[in-house]
Formats: sequence, C-alpha cells, structure tokens
Amino acid sequence: MSFFDMSSLDELSDGLANLSMFPYFEIAHYIVSVMALREQPGALVLSRISPLACWFSSMLHCFGGAVLTGIMLAEPPIGPLSNSDNILLASIIWYLIFYCPMDWVYSFTTLTPIRVVLSAMKEVTRTWKILGGIAQAQDKYEDNLLIMIAIGWAKGAGGGLISNFEQLVRGIWRPETNELIRMSYPTKITLIGAVLFALEETQYLPVEKHHLMLFYTVFTVVNKSYMMLTGSSSFPFAPIEWLLFEVLFTGRFSYGALTLRRICGTIIMDNGTSNRGRITTRGSTKECRHNCPSPVRGDRGTRRAKDESDAKDSKKYK
Amino acid sequence: MSFFDMSSLDELSDGLANLSMFPYFEIAHYIVSVMALREQPGALVLSRISPLACWFSSMLHCFGGAVLTGIMLAEPPIGPLSNSDNILLASIIWYLIFYCPMDWVYSFTTLTPIRVVLSAMKEVTRTWKILGGIAQAQDKYEDNLLIMIAIGWAKGAGGGLISNFEQLVRGIWRPETNELIRMSYPTKITLIGAVLFALEETQYLPVEKHHLMLFYTVFTVVNKSYMMLTGSSSFPFAPIEWLLFEVLFTGRFSYGALTLRRICGTIIMDNGTSNRGRITTRGSTKECRHNCPSPVRGDRGTRRAKDESDAKDSKKYK
Amino acid sequence: MSFFDMSSLDELSDGLANLSMFPYFEIAHYIVSVMALREQPGALVLSRISPLACWFSSMLHCFGGAVLTGIMLAEPPIGPLSNSDNILLASIIWYLIFYCPMDWVYSFTTLTPIRVVLSAMKEVTRTWKILGGIAQAQDKYEDNLLIMIAIGWAKGAGGGLISNFEQLVRGIWRPETNELIRMSYPTKITLIGAVLFALEETQYLPVEKHHLMLFYTVFTVVNKSYMMLTGSSSFPFAPIEWLLFEVLFTGRFSYGALTLRRICGTIIMDNGTSNRGRITTRGSTKECRHNCPSPVRGDRGTRRAKDESDAKDSKKYK
Repeated sequence: MSFFDMSSLDELSDGLANLSMFPYFEIAHYIVSVMALREQPGALVLSRISPLACWFSSMLHCFGGAVLTGIMLAEPPIGPLSNSDNILLASIIWYLIFYCPMDWVYSFTTLTPIRVVLSAMKEVTRTWKILGGIAQAQDKYEDNLLIMIAIGWAKGAGGGLISNFEQLVRGIWRPETNELIRMSYPTKITLIGAVLFALEETQYLPVEKHHLMLFYTVFTVVNKSYMMLTGSSSFPFAPIEWLLFEVLFTGRFSYGALTLRRICGTIIMDNGTSNRGRITTRGSTKECRHNCPSPVRGDRGTRRAKDESDAKDSKKYK
Repeated sequence: MSFFDMSSLDELSDGLANLSMFPYFEIAHYIVSVMALREQPGALVLSRISPLACWFSSMLHCFGGAVLTGIMLAEPPIGPLSNSDNILLASIIWYLIFYCPMDWVYSFTTLTPIRVVLSAMKEVTRTWKILGGIAQAQDKYEDNLLIMIAIGWAKGAGGGLISNFEQLVRGIWRPETNELIRMSYPTKITLIGAVLFALEETQYLPVEKHHLMLFYTVFTVVNKSYMMLTGSSSFPFAPIEWLLFEVLFTGRFSYGALTLRRICGTIIMDNGTSNRGRITTRGSTKECRHNCPSPVRGDRGTRRAKDESDAKDSKKYK
Repeated sequence: MSFFDMSSLDELSDGLANLSMFPYFEIAHYIVSVMALREQPGALVLSRISPLACWFSSMLHCFGGAVLTGIMLAEPPIGPLSNSDNILLASIIWYLIFYCPMDWVYSFTTLTPIRVVLSAMKEVTRTWKILGGIAQAQDKYEDNLLIMIAIGWAKGAGGGLISNFEQLVRGIWRPETNELIRMSYPTKITLIGAVLFALEETQYLPVEKHHLMLFYTVFTVVNKSYMMLTGSSSFPFAPIEWLLFEVLFTGRFSYGALTLRRICGTIIMDNGTSNRGRITTRGSTKECRHNCPSPVRGDRGTRRAKDESDAKDSKKYK
C-alpha cells in the first residue's frame, strides 16, 4: 500500500465511520426507495386507489430490512413505527413523490445527476445497515457466523428479500420468482458485504473495521454510480461467481479438464464480452437457455438431460 | 348538551365501561364470525372435506385480531389457544353452526331479528378489542401514537386484515385484493375507533374515556343495525373520506377552484344519492370506473392519463 | 401383557428413551428430507439455477418443525441456524444429494434396503421431535393441553405444515391445497403422536412415558417400513377416522340407523378393500368424488346438495 498515505487513510475511514446517517443519508435512502416503488408497474394506479396500501408498501420499501430482521429475531416487526422521526420523514417523502402537485418532486429527482447522487448516498446507508444487523445478531447469538451473515444480509437487503409480500400488499402476486431464485444486484452486493463484515467481526478477516467500511462503501458507491451512468447491469464479480458455480454446483467438474489456462481465458472473455460462459455452452445452449436466469450460464444439466419431468418444470422459470 | 342529564350519562357510560364481555358478548362475536365464514363461497364444501381446516379458519375469524397483534408485537400468535374457555366456546359454536343436525342453529341465527341483535352485540366487543390492543401497545411502547393506532386497529379488525392468509387455509388465494386496497366497513370503522381512542389516551382528544366508549359503541351499534335493516352498505363518513381524498391524494387540488359552496354541494349530494362524487366525474367516468373500487370516485388520474403502462395495470384491479 | 417379560420391556424402553439422536438418526432425517425435496417436480432444475434457493428449501425441509415452532412461540425462527453442527451436517448432505459427481450419493440412497433403513431411522426422530415440542410448550404455557398438542404437532410435522411457503421459496405456489385440507400420512401420524404424548404429560393417559415412546416409535417404524415395502399408502386408522367423521361431521348421523353391525361391517370392508366408505356412497359417488380428497368418502353433503354456489366451489378442490 505504498501509494496511500496511511495516516490520511486512517483519518478518512475514521471520519466515515463516525458519519451520521440521519437525516441526509436516510432521506436519500427514502427517496430512492419510494422512487423504486413508484416505478413498479401498477404502483401509480394503486396510489390513486388506496393511499393507505401505497403508504404501507412504501414503508416496506424503506424499512423492509428492519421488519424482516424483526421477524427473524422474534422482535416486534412493528418496531420501525416507533421511530417517529424516521417514519415522519419517510411519510413526507412518500407523499411528495406520489402526490406533489404538478409532480415537481418526482420530476426533479429523476434528473440524472440528482438521481446518481441520491443513489450513491443510499449505497452509503447499506454499510451502516449491514453493520447494524450484525450488531443485532451479536446481541442475541454472540459470534455465530451464519446468523451474523443472515441478519446482516436481511437488514441490508430486506426490501428485496420480502418483495413477494410487499407486492402482495399492492395486490400483485408473482410466486414464480423471488430474490433467492434470481438475485438482483443490491441483494448480491449486500450478501458479499454481510459475509465480509461478519468475517471481520469474528476475526477471520484480519483488517480494521473502519478500513473495511471505507473500502466497501467506496466500492459500492463507485460501482453503483458507474452502473447508473453507463446503463450497465453486469455484476462485477460475475466471473468469480461463474467459476464458483462451475466448480461447486454443476456436478461435472473434472479437475484435470479445467486447467488454469482455461479458467483465465474464461474470466478474461467474461470481462470483455457480455455472453458469459458461452465458451463452454455451444452444444447445449438451446435446451438450457430458458432455465438459466442468472448471468452464470453453462451446459450444466447435460448429465441429467434424461430427467424428463424436469424438462417440463423448467418452463416455469422462463 | 342541554338535552342530556349529565349525571345519568355518566352512570350509563360507567355502566358500559364495566360491562363484562365474557360470556354473552363473546358468544355473539363468535356466532357472527363463524356465520361470516360459513357464508363465504366454498366454506361449506370445505367443512365437509376437512373439518380441521374449517375449524382453524373459524378460529382465525374469531381470534384473528389477537393472532395478528401477537405477530406484530412478537408475542406468541398461538396465545389465544391458551385461553381454554374462549376456545372451547368458539369451538362449540363452530360445531353447531357447521354440523348441527338439521342445521337448526344456523337456520335460527339467520332469522333477521336474531341476526341484528347478535351483530349489535358483536359491535360492542369491537370497542373492548380496540382498547385491549391500545393497552397492549402501551405496555411495550408507552405513548407512541402510531403504534397505538396500528395495534388497536389490528386487534379490532384482525380477522379482516389477515383475510388473505385465512383464505389460504381454505385453499383459496385472492392476491388481487386485500383490506388495505379495498377496505370494508368494519375495517374502516375500527380504524376510526383506533384513532379516536389513541388520541384520547395521549390526551390529544379532551374527553373522558368512558364517554368516548359510550359514544363510539352507540354509534357502531346503531349504524350497524341501521345498515342491516335497510340493506344499505354506505359508509357514514364517505363525504369526509371523499373530501380528504380529493384534497390530499389527487395531486390536482386547487384551493381556488374548490369553494366552500362546491364542497357543501358535493357533501349534500353525496348524502342524498348513491352515486358519490359523480358531479366531478362526468368526463372521465368511463376509463376510470373499473379501477376505483372505493366509494370515493373521481377523475383523479387525468393528469397522468399518459402513463400507458399504468393503463394496462389498472385492469388488475377490476 | 403375559407375553412380555416386563423387566426386559422396561430395559428396552429405557434404552430407547436414552438413545441419542445426534448424529446417526439426525443424518438419516436429513438424508430422507433432502431426498424428498429432490424428488419434488422442479427441484432438480432449481438446484442448477439457484443453489441458494435450493439450500434454503432443503433447510426448511430439515428444520421446518423448529422454524414453525419458533414462529408460533415467538422465538427466533432463525434459531436452527445457531446450531452449527446440525446445519453443517445438513448442508453437507444437501450438497452430496444434489451435486455429488456422478450422482453416487443419491443413487446409493435410492436403493430400496438403504432407503427403508433411513426412513425407519427418520421415523425414530419423530418421537423425539414431538416430545421436544411438548417440552417447549410446557416451558411457556405449563400444562395447556391444546398448546402442547399444537406445538408437538408443529415440531414433528413442521416441514409438511409449512409446505406452501417452502414451495414459494422454490418459485412454486399451490394455494389450492395444504396439509390441513389434505393431510399426508406423516402429518396424521404426528398429530396422533402429539395427542398421545400430550395426554400422557397431563396425566390423562395412565402410561409410563418411556413405554409410550417405545410403542409409538415401534408402531411408526414398523408401519413406515411396511408401507415402503408393500407400496401401500393406506392410513392404518382410516376406519376410525371414517367413523369419527361420519358421526361428528356429516350432520346426518342418526344413532338408530348406524347399528353396531353396520359399523363393524364397514370397518371390516375398509380393512379388506381399498375403496373405503364406498358401501354408503353408491348413489352420490359421481358428484362427490372429486371434492373428497381424504380417504374418508361418503355421501355427506346430500342434505345440502341444494347449495348451488358450493357446487361450483367444489371444483377448486379437484
């Protein structure tokens, strides 16, 4: 780390660690969350039919992590309602985004520079939420790694993980997909964060907490901003994800066949092109394409191509 | 209040406040709840296929408020089962309503006078349930207004609020609607009650608790009896609801345009006719009718008629 | 009990009562549970698309009882995750069953003798789980019979009772049926066990606990093995179930008509043939067959054949 002045890095990360989320970053989080709801199909019609359902849905978008964590730890899921300042703030933002005369507020927030800044600020809150979840888990279960990861993840990506039930509030039911089957970018990046911070807490990862906070936050902010500005939706760790998937879950991995050269070739190709994993899939793309919603595609399944019942089932995931 | 003898009013409200719900009013509540279940499409067939699912569904109708409150406050949702007397009573009533030889019990309870009396008695229990919920909320969260309203509402109208999941027990799934999107009369009146009692508890409403209990109870009983006898299903506060909705949630409210004269005109028309809000809707009734399930209809949405994606979504709420 | 040497029976039941479930019986339970998941339609495709959803679904199969009990008693449903040894074991088994190269593990466990032994061992864990649930219920609610039965049942048959939500994790939603409407064999046998053990705990059933454990365990093991070896799926108490159903829930039971001779005749026929209850159904089989999913069939419902709305509803349960 020769190009970093260590003391200024320490100062920066200390400063970040002491940053207060309330009110500015929280406001950004609420605005981005409510905008995400408003851009869901049907949400605007619902807001004209039932403001109450719309408000409840917005609160689930804003406080989904706290609600889910509450349920998982048997603490009152109604807890977030007791935090009057935050609820008031989120409700005002919900009102302005959905019902402001002439739609000024929403029109303003959709301007690209505003939106990028708000999204970047929301990413900052993610770090704090993951750490809050991990602290909550430690209160009840001490240094249990799995529970720390689960609660940190739930707290940071709760809105996504409960999306099936949030949609139900709005009268929409899409059982055929959920965040476990088809993880979105925020869910994935939160999971990675939860794993890193949990490893740090249990001393498996020998870094300072405030350094990790700085690196993770900078990474999420930069990556999110980059994605918004370029319109890209690729996951930065897709090659690693692909490799892990191929090695662990295809059941046909032969250590001899997968030479280091081939792995590197795949990763380089994956970074350079958008058709990940194609190099190994030529033969089986046709029958497999529709049941591989993750970016990680491959000819997994050929060994079991004989399972006819599954061939039919795969249509469900189209 | 010249026409009330204040001391006799006090006596009356004190007497009401000390009234015991168990067993007579509770019995009425169970009978009306189980009858409501029996009159749901499919319930009778289910009772012949799976008495256990039917019993469980009945218990959710009778104790839905306690179950929902339990979940919201992280107290055992199985709690109502521990109250053996009430469970036994509710189970006997469930049995008699569904399986009594010759259907005597159900035939008897469907006689109009009996039904009106039972429904009136059930309305009385609503007051007690709301107050019970508010007391439970105060135990955990002191004088937090929002939580008091939420728990009071959940306790008083729980059976309705969890209806999606109660139906699931019976093998029925109707995600396209729920009590938040399309509130029924009991849910609305319970919400009003929860707001009033929570305001009274937090001293924002300067009335005596037993007076408020008397007025609210008399109002719900009289209104329910009137609705049953006349077959009307109109909500008594619909004009106020319409006004609030127009002012707060249409996003096109201009203070100049809505003169006092026009408001009064609307309210008078609303009370006299059944086609509420029509005076402002002539032009846009056709495209809006199907996505306005609440009694509050209007030409809201014209400003956003350009949102084509929403035009399609609105079909969901038909 | 002349053919039992009482002292050796005592020794045997004591020995059984002190048997440790961990690790061998737990391993058998995990293997059988994960195999049951793998044999669900769609599960294999899902395991290739989203290992995480597949793992979560497997854990719900393995620890469903603990999760459901946690929710019912307002204890953290995430609790099972804190038991690292069990989670590690279950995860290894999940991995081997789904992703083992050449599918060796699954192929091996599907061999009939192996499968029968594993299933028998899994049945043994049922007794322990029911008792664990009852003990948990006693901790919170002392000797409340209903709650002991409910929690014992939930702990022993949790995986089945939450199957709707376990399927949702896999993107499948089948609201038209659930374990309450159409109970499976394990759910029924667990309910019987929960009732017996709860009665024993509350002293209504005058037997020794370790004797009851021995008898119940032997019964479930023998019956399960018999069912697997003969391919039968009949419930051993179907005649009693039928009789109870006819007496309690058809609403047309006349004590005169049902002579002892007829009951016995029915029971004997039921045991001897597979078309249970047919003797009374000749006339009404056509219209009733499709809405009677339980083995208990009959011409119940003729009294209410006039309910036209229900006639339509019944199609839902086809």
